Amino acid sequence: MSVSAGLVRHPDRLLPVEPSVRAIARRLYGSVRDLPIVSPHGHVDARLLADDAPFPDPSALLVTPDHYVTRLLHASGVPLGDLGVGRGPLPEEESRRVWRRVCARWHVFRGTPVRYWLEAELAEVFDVQERPTAENADAIYDQVATCLAKDTYRPRGLFERFGIEVLATTDDPCDDLAPHARLAADPAFTGRVLPAFRPDRYLEATRPDWLAAVARLGEVADTDTGSYRGWVAAMEQRRAYFVRHGATSTDHSHDDVGTEPLAAAEAERIYRAALTGNATAREGAALRRHMLLEMARMSCDDGLTMMLHPAVRRGHHRPTLTAYGPDTGHDIPIRVEFTDALRPLLERFGTHPNLRLVLFTLDETTYSRELAPLAGFYPSVYLGAPWWFLDAPDAVLRFRAAVTETTGFTRTAGFIDDARGFCSIPVRHDMARRLDSGFLARLVAEHRLDEDEALDVLADLVTGRPRAVFRL
Amino acid sequence: MSVSAGLVRHPDRLLPVEPSVRAIARRLYGSVRDLPIVSPHGHVDARLLADDAPFPDPSALLVTPDHYVTRLLHASGVPLGDLGVGRGPLPEEESRRVWRRVCARWHVFRGTPVRYWLEAELAEVFDVQERPTAENADAIYDQVATCLAKDTYRPRGLFERFGIEVLATTDDPCDDLAPHARLAADPAFTGRVLPAFRPDRYLEATRPDWLAAVARLGEVADTDTGSYRGWVAAMEQRRAYFVRHGATSTDHSHDDVGTEPLAAAEAERIYRAALTGNATAREGAALRRHMLLEMARMSCDDGLTMMLHPAVRRGHHRPTLTAYGPDTGHDIPIRVEFTDALRPLLERFGTHPNLRLVLFTLDETTYSRELAPLAGFYPSVYLGAPWWFLDAPDAVLRFRAAVTETTGFTRTAGFIDDARGFCSIPVRHDMARRLDSGFLARLVAEHRLDEDEALDVLADLVTGRPRAVFRL
Amino acid sequence: MSVSAGLVRHPDRLLPVEPSVRAIARRLYGSVRDLPIVSPHGHVDARLLADDAPFPDPSALLVTPDHYVTRLLHASGVPLGDLGVGRGPLPEEESRRVWRRVCARWHVFRGTPVRYWLEAELAEVFDVQERPTAENADAIYDQVATCLAKDTYRPRGLFERFGIEVLATTDDPCDDLAPHARLAADPAFTGRVLPAFRPDRYLEATRPDWLAAVARLGEVADTDTGSYRGWVAAMEQRRAYFVRHGATSTDHSHDDVGTEPLAAAEAERIYRAALTGNATAREGAALRRHMLLEMARMSCDDGLTMMLHPAVRRGHHRPTLTAYGPDTGHDIPIRVEFTDALRPLLERFGTHPNLRLVLFTLDETTYSRELAPLAGFYPSVYLGAPWWFLDAPDAVLRFRAAVTETTGFTRTAGFIDDARGFCSIPVRHDMARRLDSGFLARLVAEHRLDEDEALDVLADLVTGRPRAVFRL
Repeated sequence: MSVSAGLVRHPDRLLPVEPSVRAIARRLYGSVRDLPIVSPHGHVDARLLADDAPFPDPSALLVTPDHYVTRLLHASGVPLGDLGVGRGPLPEEESRRVWRRVCARWHVFRGTPVRYWLEAELAEVFDVQERPTAENADAIYDQVATCLAKDTYRPRGLFERFGIEVLATTDDPCDDLAPHARLAADPAFTGRVLPAFRPDRYLEATRPDWLAAVARLGEVADTDTGSYRGWVAAMEQRRAYFVRHGATSTDHSHDDVGTEPLAAAEAERIYRAALTGNATAREGAALRRHMLLEMARMSCDDGLTMMLHPAVRRGHHRPTLTAYGPDTGHDIPIRVEFTDALRPLLERFGTHPNLRLVLFTLDETTYSRELAPLAGFYPSVYLGAPWWFLDAPDAVLRFRAAVTETTGFTRTAGFIDDARGFCSIPVRHDMARRLDSGFLARLVAEHRLDEDEALDVLADLVTGRPRAVFRL
Repeated sequence: MSVSAGLVRHPDRLLPVEPSVRAIARRLYGSVRDLPIVSPHGHVDARLLADDAPFPDPSALLVTPDHYVTRLLHASGVPLGDLGVGRGPLPEEESRRVWRRVCARWHVFRGTPVRYWLEAELAEVFDVQERPTAENADAIYDQVATCLAKDTYRPRGLFERFGIEVLATTDDPCDDLAPHARLAADPAFTGRVLPAFRPDRYLEATRPDWLAAVARLGEVADTDTGSYRGWVAAMEQRRAYFVRHGATSTDHSHDDVGTEPLAAAEAERIYRAALTGNATAREGAALRRHMLLEMARMSCDDGLTMMLHPAVRRGHHRPTLTAYGPDTGHDIPIRVEFTDALRPLLERFGTHPNLRLVLFTLDETTYSRELAPLAGFYPSVYLGAPWWFLDAPDAVLRFRAAVTETTGFTRTAGFIDDARGFCSIPVRHDMARRLDSGFLARLVAEHRLDEDEALDVLADLVTGRPRAVFRL
Repeated sequence: MSVSAGLVRHPDRLLPVEPSVRAIARRLYGSVRDLPIVSPHGHVDARLLADDAPFPDPSALLVTPDHYVTRLLHASGVPLGDLGVGRGPLPEEESRRVWRRVCARWHVFRGTPVRYWLEAELAEVFDVQERPTAENADAIYDQVATCLAKDTYRPRGLFERFGIEVLATTDDPCDDLAPHARLAADPAFTGRVLPAFRPDRYLEATRPDWLAAVARLGEVADTDTGSYRGWVAAMEQRRAYFVRHGATSTDHSHDDVGTEPLAAAEAERIYRAALTGNATAREGAALRRHMLLEMARMSCDDGLTMMLHPAVRRGHHRPTLTAYGPDTGHDIPIRVEFTDALRPLLERFGTHPNLRLVLFTLDETTYSRELAPLAGFYPSVYLGAPWWFLDAPDAVLRFRAAVTETTGFTRTAGFIDDARGFCSIPVRHDMARRLDSGFLARLVAEHRLDEDEALDVLADLVTGRPRAVFRL
């Protein structure tokens, strides 16, 4: 239906259109384009770099594991099974069929950042010149596959080529972090790959997998987790283990960000009830909020930056969850509230010199109403970059417009890619640099900021903020 | 106070201002400007076309029945009675007085789409050249009245002149659809005018008019509606009747979009309690949610596209409701939630090949947080066009900016005019085409989309999406 | 870190960038730039003008009392004590140290309106030419201090220089309004300084300071406030006192805008229970909603325009509240609901010819969903200007874009500065005029409004609306 056409790779892409603003934006962008990548949060597996094995094939690299890509194809009528989801490594012919399906439906991505990222990856990493179509799918597949067979396309080669200075992974508290240790000990690898502590399921005492999780936590920490007090000790022990392996942050994603404390005896009572399956959902939520406050207290002690990514209904379509597992494209955001939910935490630790709390949201209503006012007073609070569905050009500009007037630039945490696709890391950072350049250029053109200041802000956003906020 | 001036009818109206973007937008708009109108949802009465009687007078055509127009005049201090609301046909002199009141307050519409629509209708349909004022009110009245007396200004003539290909009406399940049948049987009329099934009041078991409604439903369907089971059978019967008369959709507007099912016995129990006036408001709401889920099940069976228009507090000002009836300008939106409310429906039918669920909202917070993520996964879910207060230039662009990055263009349902004023249909569709052209032109100018793709998207939005989503 | 640079004072600042739009905006702005300032709501103390004493020093004028300024410095790590907060007049050397701290952290204000206001005040009121830095802090301090010592920089001189026509203050119902009386009686002062009635704490029957408040109210009004009936009488008495002193408005800020009435006996019962400390929080809220409705009834009687500024969690960080008092930068907004909450009030008084109800919000979600639809029907409802965190360039344009299409311009109340810093009054009004000029210029450039109409709208927003809505 569409003739084969070039990939969208204009040098001014994503910059504002008005010529005088674009000229400013170009200068700003030029000043940060080649700065190193600091990535304090994402979902790349450290094993990838520790093993440095070649990527298997184009679909496994760009499609199957990335719910950003598969969800829109699913919406357009392609069953997830036809995209290889949940099936492990695919035989060559199947992988090629997956790729063909993607290319034939390239139009469903129009206007989305997924489209932008994929085209940028194809063009810049694999030198593909044509927009994918049903007709050229095989040729593009072959071109990418040929690249992947080369040594320079193995993970470490790309890591270096992408200019990544620091990359944080996301890890279970019970993880032994062996790949991180191997990388740190490997003189041939000079990048920094740091773990991050993600304890969500240990805080959800009424979820089916909690019992097994805390049992394992007890083993790994060599601490009896049969009491709440023991749970706290085990958590502190594992955080210390992570710190020794270079971690500088924790990450938390629950339905809400409640931090109301329980009396010590009540926390203990609910914890023990949960161990015997006798805690109610309401008690489980109350305990989780108490635990989250406890995590903030630990951060004051050990200095781990605390990230909150709340309010997503995970696995919204249970039949798909059952058939294909989690992270398969049907996690749907819900409304969230920060002002009252975080008050217990902030009254206790909001001015603590050691706490850094980075708040993310998928509920844009909280930007100007709650998040920016909070970050504009509490020295511990920083605003995380627009995340997930909101890591996209218009959404990023909405974020900056909504929070800057109330809280400036210094209270934001810099760009955080949250990437799953390894090759999307550089294009995501590049997109963020372009968008912030455009936003700042507008302020300059409207005479709200001088260009020297805009240059200073931009450099701070690209490397200064993430290094400071995540202690990198 | 203002001198008489020309109507705002610039050929580039509503297109982006920056010259390079406007040039692209002009080309895009030019490619769809003359495409036929596909109108899958609105409030024109089929009798209008079946009878093809001349419109009575300018006020009856443009003012009195249109709460978009009367509400702002009421806010500015004109009692609804002085606008002829709720009074049936007006004598000539009264109608003229109404028109004078409107023209004298033309400034209260500045910046609103109502102003834009009215001026476009006056200029394009009636060849009026001057902006209305107190001074020229009578002259404009006469000019419009003279037109209305002509044969070419009768409903069918305008239908043809407007280029309407399909027009859906909104109808009560008990309606016999006789005007639709007359139109379908009339060889002199070649347009398609289809009914749509709007069963709201049959689902609200604790509202005062429910008892009479289900009694009548039983009669019309020749089915005993003395039980929930009977209600279901009667509904299925009436839907089938609508399908035989060409209907392709149902429409639903309730306080929320809850779809939690009840146990069969519980549904039956509440239904019977309601028949004797013994159901509580809470039970009524629970039954309505169960019934809405049942409607989705029926849509899987009979293929009727299901529209949801939730969360409006109808008749907010009860004294006005009592004096002038419903739809008199004081329906006020309330907050709404989709993620959890629709989960029962989507877990059951969200991937059903026969279901098409079109979601509308007046709560813009749900665009990026809930609606776009849902439509970006579920093949059954489509996003309806911005509706009612949001069917306006800036609001439409906010909608596109908020949903496109998450769900692209293919998951939206195309423009839906929801019009009450017959003459506003073409100007509303024209406005939508201009706005989508402008939105796409920006993406092209920012190098996020190529122009060939933008042309393809635009044609799909104008005719492709509505035909596909509403099976027209 | 940054070299000393000029203050941002370009004549086109804040106007749209695109040349053809900017040209229109310049013409519009030029037509209102020099109109007098009508300020129907703010927080300047009438004593300031009555006494006409010189301002003490630059920090006391520009920093210490202004939580807009101190909060961002606090977030950046400066304790409030180091900014002189809560400490009364500072010795010269301390005041200078405060000023140095501000200048050294000038960059934290980048992109905020606080930065814009401060620079505009320094440049236009004190003729400062350089952007503040650590290096030039003392020189700027000296320059401002030198000015403040001059007669022309005393409050009345600035009042005249700023072109203020009317200035409303905010006052406790028990205030004797003596400064207002002195000003009114002073033939040497020709401006209008009017009180506004702010009874918040008298409506919160379960707050610690309520008992003392109503006792004092009883004394001042010479009315027994030992019953609800007595409270009503005392309130009416004080409102009449305010009216005699020129007041034209009341102002109300509570957690919500509920107006559900209680039965008379129930109101009396709760009131008396509260007097003995036996009312629950829920009863206190119910009584407050009943009282707010009573206030609306009084407004119908005495014609005082009623402002609602709801939904802020005051004193969010209790340790700071305890140490430094209220209004110290940690009032954080919460979600709010208008549609249902105001319904009891609007059903009773929404079409009353004497009521003017001005609604403000910090929850932008209510703009298009609730506020604009309400103001677009009820003749009594007006939308207040974007307030507090939202009184900023991008936020103001979001407000206009969100409400204009639904309710036009005539249903908005004009600019309201809500200023605490006396010297920020003219720059805030100037900012509003620039932003409205830019918004209207865009509508003209998009051919949605003619320029003669835009000129008319703008003049109405600047002086017409506030005079009419606040009966000035």
